[in-house]
Amino acid sequence: MSDAVDLLIHARWVIPVEPAGLTLERHTVALCGERIAAVLPQDDARRRYPNVPAVELPGHALIPGLVNLHTHAAMTLMRGIADDLPLMRWLQEAVWPAESRHVSAAFVRDGTLLAATEMLRGGITTCNDMYFHPEAAADAYDQAGMRAMLGMVVLDFPTPYAHDADDYLRKGLAVRDRWRDHPRIGFTLAPHAPYTVSDDALARIAALADEIDVPVHMHVHETAGEISDALARHGVRPLLRLQRLGLLGPGFIAVHAVHADATDIDLLARHGCSVAHCPTSNMKLASGIAPVERLLAAGINTGLGTDGAASNNRLDMFAEMRQAALLAKVASGDATAVPAHVALRMATLDGARALGLGERIGSIGAGKLADLCAVNLATLETQPCFDPVSHLVYAVGREHVSHVWVGGRCVLDKGKPLLHGHDNELLRLAAVWQTKLVN
Amino acid sequence: MSDAVDLLIHARWVIPVEPAGLTLERHTVALCGERIAAVLPQDDARRRYPNVPAVELPGHALIPGLVNLHTHAAMTLMRGIADDLPLMRWLQEAVWPAESRHVSAAFVRDGTLLAATEMLRGGITTCNDMYFHPEAAADAYDQAGMRAMLGMVVLDFPTPYAHDADDYLRKGLAVRDRWRDHPRIGFTLAPHAPYTVSDDALARIAALADEIDVPVHMHVHETAGEISDALARHGVRPLLRLQRLGLLGPGFIAVHAVHADATDIDLLARHGCSVAHCPTSNMKLASGIAPVERLLAAGINTGLGTDGAASNNRLDMFAEMRQAALLAKVASGDATAVPAHVALRMATLDGARALGLGERIGSIGAGKLADLCAVNLATLETQPCFDPVSHLVYAVGREHVSHVWVGGRCVLDKGKPLLHGHDNELLRLAAVWQTKLVN
Repeated sequence: MSDAVDLLIHARWVIPVEPAGLTLERHTVALCGERIAAVLPQDDARRRYPNVPAVELPGHALIPGLVNLHTHAAMTLMRGIADDLPLMRWLQEAVWPAESRHVSAAFVRDGTLLAATEMLRGGITTCNDMYFHPEAAADAYDQAGMRAMLGMVVLDFPTPYAHDADDYLRKGLAVRDRWRDHPRIGFTLAPHAPYTVSDDALARIAALADEIDVPVHMHVHETAGEISDALARHGVRPLLRLQRLGLLGPGFIAVHAVHADATDIDLLARHGCSVAHCPTSNMKLASGIAPVERLLAAGINTGLGTDGAASNNRLDMFAEMRQAALLAKVASGDATAVPAHVALRMATLDGARALGLGERIGSIGAGKLADLCAVNLATLETQPCFDPVSHLVYAVGREHVSHVWVGGRCVLDKGKPLLHGHDNELLRLAAVWQTKLVN
Repeated sequence: MSDAVDLLIHARWVIPVEPAGLTLERHTVALCGERIAAVLPQDDARRRYPNVPAVELPGHALIPGLVNLHTHAAMTLMRGIADDLPLMRWLQEAVWPAESRHVSAAFVRDGTLLAATEMLRGGITTCNDMYFHPEAAADAYDQAGMRAMLGMVVLDFPTPYAHDADDYLRKGLAVRDRWRDHPRIGFTLAPHAPYTVSDDALARIAALADEIDVPVHMHVHETAGEISDALARHGVRPLLRLQRLGLLGPGFIAVHAVHADATDIDLLARHGCSVAHCPTSNMKLASGIAPVERLLAAGINTGLGTDGAASNNRLDMFAEMRQAALLAKVASGDATAVPAHVALRMATLDGARALGLGERIGSIGAGKLADLCAVNLATLETQPCFDPVSHLVYAVGREHVSHVWVGGRCVLDKGKPLLHGHDNELLRLAAVWQTKLVN
């Protein structure tokens, strides 16, 4: 154990996520710079480090920072712009027209800053973002102090951001080159979906992903219509087409996987792919219910995502944990499906593993980066407390998050964000964009 | 319009729920004692009543107080005592043993006070409660300043509260006699479920409900097992048995109605019954998904309930509104099912109508009781705001509730409860009961 400890966090409960099912009572997480130096009983920590600054969390659970495995952060500026519509109408009538008129680097910077602040306040320390203008998103995450993986988005059709697959790729790779040494910013290749990217482009993305060793982040099997269209157009289900093009592998993150039959699940399992389960978005757009218990039973690493605020409408991983547990139970008819500890692991370590960050974040242990979230369980709404993990999934709201650290740096202190600037400035930015969007 | 106005509430938006779909911008709700005197534009109100005290809600939506159509309030003391179990194991292994050892008037008083405070903080002004010792619950609601309908619970088996159906009824009626003039406390007859109450007792309850004119509040068709057991035991589905015993009518509140086929829906519609839909509880216990769109299409009045905190685990009607909308969409495959305005009506006016209170509460209009809830939409998590009703259902958390009035009396002011006593006292009570329950 290092003696260069510079912060002690004394918590009523420390829930490391790994080993599975463990809840440590009255323990301390000792930090050294950006990393966790040790996890030890409070009494030992106070004796061993009498002069180290300490944060007292006497009624709190300390958990790994949550990992939002799929979002479109900047779309927060379109939160609630159209509801109660199915996916294709929502895209074609509301989202795509608004995007084609308004999306710019400034839109992405402002929207991502709003989203990052919302996420950090809700205990999310890492997100896997897919949107245009990643250079502007990177600025926002840098300013907010959040960890993010940015998608190098690829589409076959032109948008105000880029005009063809080559152009998307070139722009994405250029941003990656500029930000590759940043400690909190990483990149994925992000072909939008099987129905919006050609075979040629997908094959090039597969080769590139191998060459530069980044994950591939892609919407897959979101709706039944996507499958039937693909069968008509390509003669095979989308996942099989992606496999033939060389895309499936341990770095592949299949977002949604709502319509995954036994052959799809076998493909995902065989290639070591991950799934980003987005239960609220799938429910709201009536896309369907992902077969989460079968994915887990097949050994497929499955994290959780909020999707964008335009289809959720909250970037709230506590809500997604609860929803994942509830939806799996009712869909399978088995109340033991996705118990609380599993939901918490999906929202932390499994998300980290999908991003290739499982050795660095996603659980609380010596040597890991200090991405941490403290949740106040000493509130009326969380009394009594027989099991803090049950409460984290079934009772807590994100408003109970009190402190957040990213890489050892405190970014939320007693509910107050420390880095992003002032709430009023963000409210003003949101109002400006709202006015533009409705005009 | 009365000139005896004694309070003005100026809100950015007033959402009266009735007429359907209406959102009034920059309006004022004028109160006279316990009632709403008028709803009028802010400018008119400020001109007409320059000297009346006013509450300014410049970024808020003012909605009717939420009506929780099914809960077991005192079970809040068992929040999270056992999770990830199906209904019958949850009842038989966790809930019933704990109840038989610990439930008392003191347990019910303390648990109901904790629950009432949680509900009021979350904008719930009325609940339909079903639990033992309603005399103790009445004390708690009286102290908390909340409106409640208390079930006169009937079971065929003995509990520490009563020993047979006669005894339950006698005790319930005695409590009703003592509290019948209270302005905020009402009563229902509450036979627990078709599988726990005999034909004899149910027939007497049906006659009594007619005689004393109170609603009947009963769990019905919660699980598939309940239906198959009833078919084996009685030869008919439970709802048909209840109809033959004379229980179905406009005062009948069928709680859950998860397993409702076309004949069940026809029975409920023909007799003008209401349904209390409890989506989170039904999901958590893997009971199934109530056919809400078909209930609504059949014209059945359908409100929302949280169920008890031991199976939810939050008494949060904002969560239930969102869940009802999301679950109906994914279950029906139709993203337009239960749109935001419908979810809000279910959580307010439809709940009030089920309780026979539709003329007094559940919407904002002159002459109605001033049961009101203000929700702050000027927060980061609710920006931008294109449609406040969308945000109330899809984006808001109960933590955004800022003010609550029950019968014109302010019980929550800027998030602070005014009546129930101190948080610390409630936290202490919860801790005392937690210690007892685990020993």
